[in-house]
Amino acid sequence: MSNINSFFFIFGKRILVSNILSMDGWFALDKPYLRKLSDPPLENPIFVQGLPGFGNVGRIAAHLLIKFFDAKPFAELYSPTFPDYVAINLKGICHLPRYEFFYAPMEKNNLIIMTGEIQPSFDDVVAHYTVCDSVLDFVETLGCKFIVTMGGVPITEDKTQVYIAATSPRLATEFMEKGAVIYSKGRIVGGTGLTLALAKERKIDGISLLGTTMGFKADKGAGFLVFKFLMKALGKEIKEGLVENNAPEE
Amino acid sequence: MSNINSFFFIFGKRILVSNILSMDGWFALDKPYLRKLSDPPLENPIFVQGLPGFGNVGRIAAHLLIKFFDAKPFAELYSPTFPDYVAINLKGICHLPRYEFFYAPMEKNNLIIMTGEIQPSFDDVVAHYTVCDSVLDFVETLGCKFIVTMGGVPITEDKTQVYIAATSPRLATEFMEKGAVIYSKGRIVGGTGLTLALAKERKIDGISLLGTTMGFKADKGAGFLVFKFLMKALGKEIKEGLVENNAPEE
Amino acid sequence: MSNINSFFFIFGKRILVSNILSMDGWFALDKPYLRKLSDPPLENPIFVQGLPGFGNVGRIAAHLLIKFFDAKPFAELYSPTFPDYVAINLKGICHLPRYEFFYAPMEKNNLIIMTGEIQPSFDDVVAHYTVCDSVLDFVETLGCKFIVTMGGVPITEDKTQVYIAATSPRLATEFMEKGAVIYSKGRIVGGTGLTLALAKERKIDGISLLGTTMGFKADKGAGFLVFKFLMKALGKEIKEGLVENNAPEE
Amino acid sequence: MSNINSFFFIFGKRILVSNILSMDGWFALDKPYLRKLSDPPLENPIFVQGLPGFGNVGRIAAHLLIKFFDAKPFAELYSPTFPDYVAINLKGICHLPRYEFFYAPMEKNNLIIMTGEIQPSFDDVVAHYTVCDSVLDFVETLGCKFIVTMGGVPITEDKTQVYIAATSPRLATEFMEKGAVIYSKGRIVGGTGLTLALAKERKIDGISLLGTTMGFKADKGAGFLVFKFLMKALGKEIKEGLVENNAPEE
Repeated sequence: MSNINSFFFIFGKRILVSNILSMDGWFALDKPYLRKLSDPPLENPIFVQGLPGFGNVGRIAAHLLIKFFDAKPFAELYSPTFPDYVAINLKGICHLPRYEFFYAPMEKNNLIIMTGEIQPSFDDVVAHYTVCDSVLDFVETLGCKFIVTMGGVPITEDKTQVYIAATSPRLATEFMEKGAVIYSKGRIVGGTGLTLALAKERKIDGISLLGTTMGFKADKGAGFLVFKFLMKALGKEIKEGLVENNAPEE
Repeated sequence: MSNINSFFFIFGKRILVSNILSMDGWFALDKPYLRKLSDPPLENPIFVQGLPGFGNVGRIAAHLLIKFFDAKPFAELYSPTFPDYVAINLKGICHLPRYEFFYAPMEKNNLIIMTGEIQPSFDDVVAHYTVCDSVLDFVETLGCKFIVTMGGVPITEDKTQVYIAATSPRLATEFMEKGAVIYSKGRIVGGTGLTLALAKERKIDGISLLGTTMGFKADKGAGFLVFKFLMKALGKEIKEGLVENNAPEE
Repeated sequence: MSNINSFFFIFGKRILVSNILSMDGWFALDKPYLRKLSDPPLENPIFVQGLPGFGNVGRIAAHLLIKFFDAKPFAELYSPTFPDYVAINLKGICHLPRYEFFYAPMEKNNLIIMTGEIQPSFDDVVAHYTVCDSVLDFVETLGCKFIVTMGGVPITEDKTQVYIAATSPRLATEFMEKGAVIYSKGRIVGGTGLTLALAKERKIDGISLLGTTMGFKADKGAGFLVFKFLMKALGKEIKEGLVENNAPEE
Repeated sequence: MSNINSFFFIFGKRILVSNILSMDGWFALDKPYLRKLSDPPLENPIFVQGLPGFGNVGRIAAHLLIKFFDAKPFAELYSPTFPDYVAINLKGICHLPRYEFFYAPMEKNNLIIMTGEIQPSFDDVVAHYTVCDSVLDFVETLGCKFIVTMGGVPITEDKTQVYIAATSPRLATEFMEKGAVIYSKGRIVGGTGLTLALAKERKIDGISLLGTTMGFKADKGAGFLVFKFLMKALGKEIKEGLVENNAPEE
């Protein structure tokens, strides 16, 4: 291999200014980035997040919300810390791992629902902070003043329950009175806990709803319970039977 | 050890401006860098990538292409996220781990073929995004509008097949009609998937060709099959027998 | 999902200037950050650090100091390299993992005591350097000229002892004369060692006090011994019995 | 904990300009840094590196060189990617993990010898590139035009030999003629290989001398062999017996 005519070409850091319209779909990959698909009118929205985890409880609950409200996708979050595989859909089309944001109009507050197939790699602690922080950056620009994270709590004996953790004693008590059990002296792992605690640092109110689950496989019952509890708290009574057809597959 | 006359010398970040000719072979090592060896005339080139992975299918197919077209090396990509060992050649000469780019003139489109002995470390997810992104940065500057990534799909029963994933339904259908099977609801790990999905984000068309393979050791048959399928798609009929002498060793 | 009206929104690096009052509790998460809760009058303070580790010796000793002096919290250190779970307190309220700083007025020097429930992830070596360095940045701005790190030393046979390592031979000898054994040819893992060695690089004097412990579970006896030795060195005689009620639980 | 009077204090990135004299021993910890202890007169120095690794061969050979030439320390390299423990010396004094540079005057060329107790963490690939690159940055500023890295090669049967890898065929042949065996089609792991391959990228000539070793424990014989071979190449004949007293302990 000849060295004649050899020269160097270094990839510079590509800097894109926020809010600049990018016509060609080109983005920087050294931090999370958000792609907006539309600009729905949102007033005082409540942000609800359900990611994969114990029993996939959070993700199942999020899918039930999306189905119930017929919520529409309006944004996607990508990150180079999401797993390095790509999913292929039924028709053979690839897409990068991502979080998806949906919106649903309600009487009092609009709802923003976020879910995804993945979380950052287990080992990459900083990635968890960064991604949760980016999510909050985004929902704050949308005017969101209250957040709900949904997840699972692993238990060894069968005891169906919804646990609550909150950013303030007032909120913990309020949801305890609605039937949740205080998650006293517990720990919440991954995005379900971090988004809540980071919201607290920003003085955003919020709660975590945690459904008890016995296994690591998808627990539709626990997901439904969390969904039902949240709906009741939002003033909607939910009948059983909805869960059957609408839980995510995996 | 005396502290008299002690002072500090901090290594600053070395910034090299893109496209500047570096006379002394000196480069920054905090991101991928590309060294061009020559500037071949390329018109509407198709980019084809084959990296190590399941059954080494992609790498074997890439080597067959290089051999068939007598393709010439014209660029090398290095990255501090490539493994921290160096390979020594037959004559005792060392070189850093790298991806190598070859070009081959064809009637309609030129071909750029990339292969390498390594991929970034399995644990370093961000590195995979960064390196694939750098590859696309480079081939885009060369005017490339279509990419092909080649790899293997692990299977448990013996079933010889070429799977296809694509950036659009039109492409998936087009290659299905040429004999590939839609890789419906699958996952593609590492650079083979990421380069495709990142290309899609840039609005670059592309496909993944995945040969079925039963083992982790080099699968020359699967590599040949992917090579043959691609050649047919490019309008070249390939006879058996070519594979014997030309697959990479390891 | 329509691509019409799609645009990009990249999260810029948020830069906050040091010492600027942030009204809304918003901070950057790409490095450690410190939140001051109050500005206690500190004169020539001694910094004492006790983090979790072997037998939780350091943390137990720190809690005994806080209790003895009725020390008050005045600052918190957060880092995206701390574990990605959040702790929930008795009342269901979440908080991010953090180090807490307390101050205690004494006759001669004030005392700053730092403790926490966590250290950075075991694998993230750079994080350990960064966090210890940030701690020293902070205590230096408070005028601190002497530091004490407390920890445990794993031993296989029962031999109750306090080991000493120091930033200078004079200090090692001085504390040896007070009853500690020189930790000759030893190694100190994690924050207990790094904070000491990084202090030495800044020309800050300091010592490590290491209590021998046989297990990984909380060793209240070893913690009390380190506490007692430090108190004697500070001119306070400690009676047994204090330890029973005041060690941290876990 | 009261939130009254709370404010934020963010640690800014500390930027130190190269070659600026730092009076108070304060340095940035986000990249490797070098501390010079003195400024020895060096003319056309040869750089020789021996780090821990297989059989500790490189480190043992480096210590023999330091002893033979009565070489003097003149610089230290620190890095936040070095292990997060600190070593305590015989007298109880701590120091950060580091590489140490020694110089030895010779008739023709001066010798710079570098050794250390550690290498960056095994998992942190980028750290290996960065540290080796920093070492080359430093020795290049000292006018070094030739480097030697020394290490071990694990073998399963007892066969005492010195292998050679080089940056050019001419060098490989030259040292083969002096008795080394070409390390044909081999791999060199860690700093021993990377420093050589990165030197080649900078157009600096160099060789790797690799002593065969059967175990992971310190192999004084292999270390002596590499030392002896290098001494012969430098024009010094070495008698047996030197090795006994002078190899590093561990």
